Amino acid sequence: MKLANDLLIRAANGQKVERTPVWLMRQAGRILPEYRKIRNALSGFKELVETPHLAAEVTIQPVDILDVDAAIIFSDILVVPEAMGLSYEMVEKKGPYFPKTIRSAEDLLNIKVPDVDEKLWYVTEAIKITKRELNGRVPLIGFAGAPWTIFAYMIEGQGSKTFSNAKAFLYRNPETSHQLLQLITDTTIAYLKAQISAGADIVQLFDSWAGILTHDQYLEFGMKYVNQICDAIKEVPLTVFAKGAFFALENMKNLKCETIGLDWNMNVSNAVNIFSNTKTLQGNLDPCVLYGDFSLIRQKTKEMLNSFANHRHIANLGHGVYPDINPDHVKCFIESVKSHN
Amino acid sequence: MKLANDLLIRAANGQKVERTPVWLMRQAGRILPEYRKIRNALSGFKELVETPHLAAEVTIQPVDILDVDAAIIFSDILVVPEAMGLSYEMVEKKGPYFPKTIRSAEDLLNIKVPDVDEKLWYVTEAIKITKRELNGRVPLIGFAGAPWTIFAYMIEGQGSKTFSNAKAFLYRNPETSHQLLQLITDTTIAYLKAQISAGADIVQLFDSWAGILTHDQYLEFGMKYVNQICDAIKEVPLTVFAKGAFFALENMKNLKCETIGLDWNMNVSNAVNIFSNTKTLQGNLDPCVLYGDFSLIRQKTKEMLNSFANHRHIANLGHGVYPDINPDHVKCFIESVKSHN
Repeated sequence: MKLANDLLIRAANGQKVERTPVWLMRQAGRILPEYRKIRNALSGFKELVETPHLAAEVTIQPVDILDVDAAIIFSDILVVPEAMGLSYEMVEKKGPYFPKTIRSAEDLLNIKVPDVDEKLWYVTEAIKITKRELNGRVPLIGFAGAPWTIFAYMIEGQGSKTFSNAKAFLYRNPETSHQLLQLITDTTIAYLKAQISAGADIVQLFDSWAGILTHDQYLEFGMKYVNQICDAIKEVPLTVFAKGAFFALENMKNLKCETIGLDWNMNVSNAVNIFSNTKTLQGNLDPCVLYGDFSLIRQKTKEMLNSFANHRHIANLGHGVYPDINPDHVKCFIESVKSHN
Repeated sequence: MKLANDLLIRAANGQKVERTPVWLMRQAGRILPEYRKIRNALSGFKELVETPHLAAEVTIQPVDILDVDAAIIFSDILVVPEAMGLSYEMVEKKGPYFPKTIRSAEDLLNIKVPDVDEKLWYVTEAIKITKRELNGRVPLIGFAGAPWTIFAYMIEGQGSKTFSNAKAFLYRNPETSHQLLQLITDTTIAYLKAQISAGADIVQLFDSWAGILTHDQYLEFGMKYVNQICDAIKEVPLTVFAKGAFFALENMKNLKCETIGLDWNMNVSNAVNIFSNTKTLQGNLDPCVLYGDFSLIRQKTKEMLNSFANHRHIANLGHGVYPDINPDHVKCFIESVKSHN
């Protein structure tokens, strides 16, 4: 089906656009009262993730309510380790928790590349419903966690400031680490291809914990596998968002992907110099700007847009929108992008 | 008193040294069983901080046990907000918690620049005891949190991944923010001078949450006050460690301080190019390397030392040593530095 608004796809592909497209990471979620209403009627976060028609409904909410230029499928990056054999719980106010984690090479015996159609049917089904209900209004973004980030959770078992268990594992067991990262990579490629077959118009890799590795470690255990995924996904444009990996921007020039996400710490003019229109850049307003008043949001959004100057660009925050942000402030950001010359 | 081992001071001042000096951030603390024995006999962490002869004892432990080239006074950066009027609790396994926080300009009425000799006597007393007992073996490092980091705790009231309340406060109340930052700065200058009078041979500013600000915000709300402190402290060498502030390294060239701390993410050759021996660089081994075996620790330490080449250098980790690291692995790191040519 032809998209009525294909700004995001054209921007990702480096084609001409009338204006900069805009969406927000975590736009489908707790910022919207309409989301909280659906979520609160359920047993938990995972029930929402695993119920396709509800996941589709909250995916479309920000398109209706915020008028963003793309929908992103409501899901979680941790469905992948679960499909591989490590189930997780989402603990209210605490975050994800894995009762079992990977401690040694032997633990890998229980981990496998799953049949994604069987194990992750609820994501592809949610994508199909969303595509049908969006009816071509805007593109639908599919996504997955990057292998290092998924690995970090499989070792650590929960969120962490330092992910020191996961990093220790890399130093102590480099070979087992590579084996596990390869299993995750193979699963992720199959999973993204399934999302694309189901209708995703563009896909994004989230490397949320890239920034805690050293440069050398990120090249060896992170980028190597991101690179494999970039090489494998040819059907639709791909975005790589490696949060905190400012040190690896130069290396990312060589990835076969269309778009690079920038967090709010990353220097835009530096990124513009590095990529000089060979890729699209996505980001990177400080998410905390949305705590400010409308005039501050307009001013900072304008400054951010100007910093990308004539570079290929998709407007976004430099991180997921924080859950306590007033939706009217999000709308102000979106309108500021749309009205910018 | 003349120091028997003054390698750290000479290295900080850019003078000739026979070998690279080495110490570790958080070397006085949970890694040592000797520390845990003292700590466990007390009601809590704060009792240790506020009992000078015990604080002195745990300060000297790593000199005796690990043979480091400096002691750092055992204390906490949060004694400063407490002395200014906001008391904190240290919650076991959770971290600091402030029952009252700064929410508005009115809350500043209860905050003042204290008489540090009266309010923080226990730190200066601990320094005096430590100096006496060290008897000139190695230099003693004094320290304080940088104003932005202290501000972040005074607004947020506890640790946070995003410090979004503190950042929101900067955007919403820039004038009140500057007023509070100035109060913290004035207190910090008086506090560091008191530490120096009591015997500290060198002092370090920890800007632990520098890395969550945008570059512009860090210049306006962070570096501005770090700069004032650098200008005010002339008695002994000063080190500035702004964790995560890779984006501001160029700006730090202009600080009137002797040493710049680097975290493990920061590219050493980039820092060497920027500072080119105008300042000493301190760091920056990934703290997780110490989870590896002895051969890995030796190899990575060697690579780290070589990366600083002929640059003025003090060896350290790129972050505080993690509490579950085996002291024998810490010793291996220290010995690797000492035996390096």
